[in-house]
Amino acid sequence: MTEFDIIKHYFTRQTRQRADVALGIGDDATIVNVPVDKQLVITTDTLSAGIHFPSETPPNAIGHKALAVNLSDLAAMGAHPAWITLSLTLPSFDAAWLNAFCDGFFALANTHDVALIGGDLTHGPLSITVAALGLIPAQKALLRSAAKPNDLIYVTGTLGDAGLALLGLQQKITMDPTIQTKLLEKLNYPTPRVKVGEALQGIAHAAIDVSDGLASDLSHILDESNVGARINVDQLPLSDALKTVLDKNAAIKLALSAGDDYELCFTIPPQHREQLTKLVPCRITCIGEITAEKGLLLHYQQGNPYHGDIIGYQHF
Amino acid sequence: MTEFDIIKHYFTRQTRQRADVALGIGDDATIVNVPVDKQLVITTDTLSAGIHFPSETPPNAIGHKALAVNLSDLAAMGAHPAWITLSLTLPSFDAAWLNAFCDGFFALANTHDVALIGGDLTHGPLSITVAALGLIPAQKALLRSAAKPNDLIYVTGTLGDAGLALLGLQQKITMDPTIQTKLLEKLNYPTPRVKVGEALQGIAHAAIDVSDGLASDLSHILDESNVGARINVDQLPLSDALKTVLDKNAAIKLALSAGDDYELCFTIPPQHREQLTKLVPCRITCIGEITAEKGLLLHYQQGNPYHGDIIGYQHF
Repeated sequence: MTEFDIIKHYFTRQTRQRADVALGIGDDATIVNVPVDKQLVITTDTLSAGIHFPSETPPNAIGHKALAVNLSDLAAMGAHPAWITLSLTLPSFDAAWLNAFCDGFFALANTHDVALIGGDLTHGPLSITVAALGLIPAQKALLRSAAKPNDLIYVTGTLGDAGLALLGLQQKITMDPTIQTKLLEKLNYPTPRVKVGEALQGIAHAAIDVSDGLASDLSHILDESNVGARINVDQLPLSDALKTVLDKNAAIKLALSAGDDYELCFTIPPQHREQLTKLVPCRITCIGEITAEKGLLLHYQQGNPYHGDIIGYQHF
Repeated sequence: MTEFDIIKHYFTRQTRQRADVALGIGDDATIVNVPVDKQLVITTDTLSAGIHFPSETPPNAIGHKALAVNLSDLAAMGAHPAWITLSLTLPSFDAAWLNAFCDGFFALANTHDVALIGGDLTHGPLSITVAALGLIPAQKALLRSAAKPNDLIYVTGTLGDAGLALLGLQQKITMDPTIQTKLLEKLNYPTPRVKVGEALQGIAHAAIDVSDGLASDLSHILDESNVGARINVDQLPLSDALKTVLDKNAAIKLALSAGDDYELCFTIPPQHREQLTKLVPCRITCIGEITAEKGLLLHYQQGNPYHGDIIGYQHF
C-alpha cells in the first residue's frame, strides 16, 4: 500500500463531520472556521515506543493514549477540543496493528467529537505526534501563572496508579494479577479531563495536567504564579488498588512522583468551593492550599513534614 | 539539561513577537487570536533522518527544511503562514547541533514572521514534526480540485535540482564539485513559495507543491479535479546545473520524477496569464494545459509522445 492508500483506508473513517471543517483531509492542508468569539488553543505531544509507553503496549492503547495526552493539555487550559492532526511514524505496514491503533484513536476522538484534519505517515521507529486545537472564550483560559495565595489546591481522580502499573510491568513490584490488570487500564487508557477543564472556566485560577508527577507539575504553577504551596500528603487521593499493593509511605511517594496519570491539578479561590463540587463530573480532592511564601511544603495530617523523594519524570 | 532548560535556552529565542499570540510557550498549551475575516489553514509534515534527508545533512539545513516543507504546503493553499509548532526527537543532547538546527529553523521562521508557539522534545532517533497554521480569506484557497479544462499549467523555479543533488550525494552520478555544491543548496535549503502562493489568490484555480515529483503531484490535481493534462516536456524549466550534468532525456526524467524541489505547480484560466506575470515574484514557466479528457499526456515540443519512466517518490 502507498502512503495515500493507507491514509484513505485507515484515517478517513470518521463518519460524523464537524460543520466547521471547511476542507478536510486530501489537499496540501486543511481549512477550518474558527468561531469569532473564541480564541484558538494549540498543543502538541509526541509519544515514542520504549520511552513514553512500553514497547509491548497494545496498539489500541497507543492510539488512545497518543490522543489522550494532547486532549489532557487542552483540558488543563479549560479549552474545548475541536480538531487534531496525527503524524505517525511506523516501522512497517501492519494492517492488524493499524486497525487496532485506529480503533483506540478514533474511539476517543469520537467521544469528544474532535475531527482528524490532517497528518503525515512516515517510515521509521514507532513514534506518534498529535497536535490538538481547541477553543476557549477570550480571557477564560486556566493559566499556570494564575494561582493566588489562599487558593485551595485540588486534583481529579487518584494519583500514582499509572506509575504503579509501570513498576508492575517492569517487574519491580509484584502484585495480584487482577490488580495489575486494573492499574494497567489507567496506564494505557488515561481519561483526559476535558469536561472538568471546561467546567472550571470562571471558577478555577490555575491548572495543569499531571503528566510528570504531581510535585513536579505543581511546581510549575508555583514558579509561574510566584507563590508557594502546603500539601497534606495524607489527603492525596489513592486508589484501593494502590493502597492494597503499597504501604503508606511508598504510596505517598508514588502519588507525588509518578507521571502518566493525566489527572488535573488546579487551584480555586476558597469562595468557589461549594460551586465547584456541583459542577465537576468526577472525583476531586482538596490536597492543600497556595501560600504567599514560596516553596512547596509537604506535611502529614498532624503537621509534621514529609521528607521522601519526590523526583518527577526527567525527559533528558 | 532538562527538557525545560533546553526549551528555554534554545527555543524561546524569537525576539519579535506577533501581537496575535495571546499566550506563548510555557503553559500546557498556547493561545492565539484568529482574525474574524480569515479561515485557519493547517498542515503537518515529519522529516526523519535517513528517509527525508541524508543522515549527513548539516543541522542548519535540517532546521530550515523541516520548516520549509510545511510552509510550502501552506503556500500551495495560497495561505499566509502565522504560527508553528515543533516536535523534535533527538538521539542525544548536543549543544552545537541544536544551536545550528535552531539557526536554520528560526532564520526561515523570522523571514516569514511566523511564531513558534509550542512543541515537544523527546529522546529517540532523529525526527522532526512541524505543524504550521496559516490564514486565508474565506473561499480564496487554491484547491487541488479546482483545475478546469483549458487552464494553463505553470511551475515556479526549476525542477529536478534537488533530485540530482541527492543522486550526487549517493554517488550514483559524478559531477563537478562547484555544481554539486550549488545543487546541494537547493536540496538542503528549499525556498517555500509563500509569496507566490499568496499572490495567486484570486488568479489561480488549483495548486500543489512539488514534493514527490511533478508527474506524481500534478496527478493529484488531475484526479481531484476530474480532468487531464497535456505537458510539453521540452518546456520543463531546467537549471543550467542540471543541463550541464545530464543529457536531455535524463534531465526530463528527473524533472518529472524527482521530489524535494518544493516548487509550486498551479493552474490558471488563460485570461489571467498577463496579470500573473506581473504579480509573481519568481521565475514561472508554462508547461502545458488542463484537458477535459482525463489522463496525463506527456509530449515533446514537436508533438510526439514522451515515454520515459515517471515514478514519483513512494512513502511505503
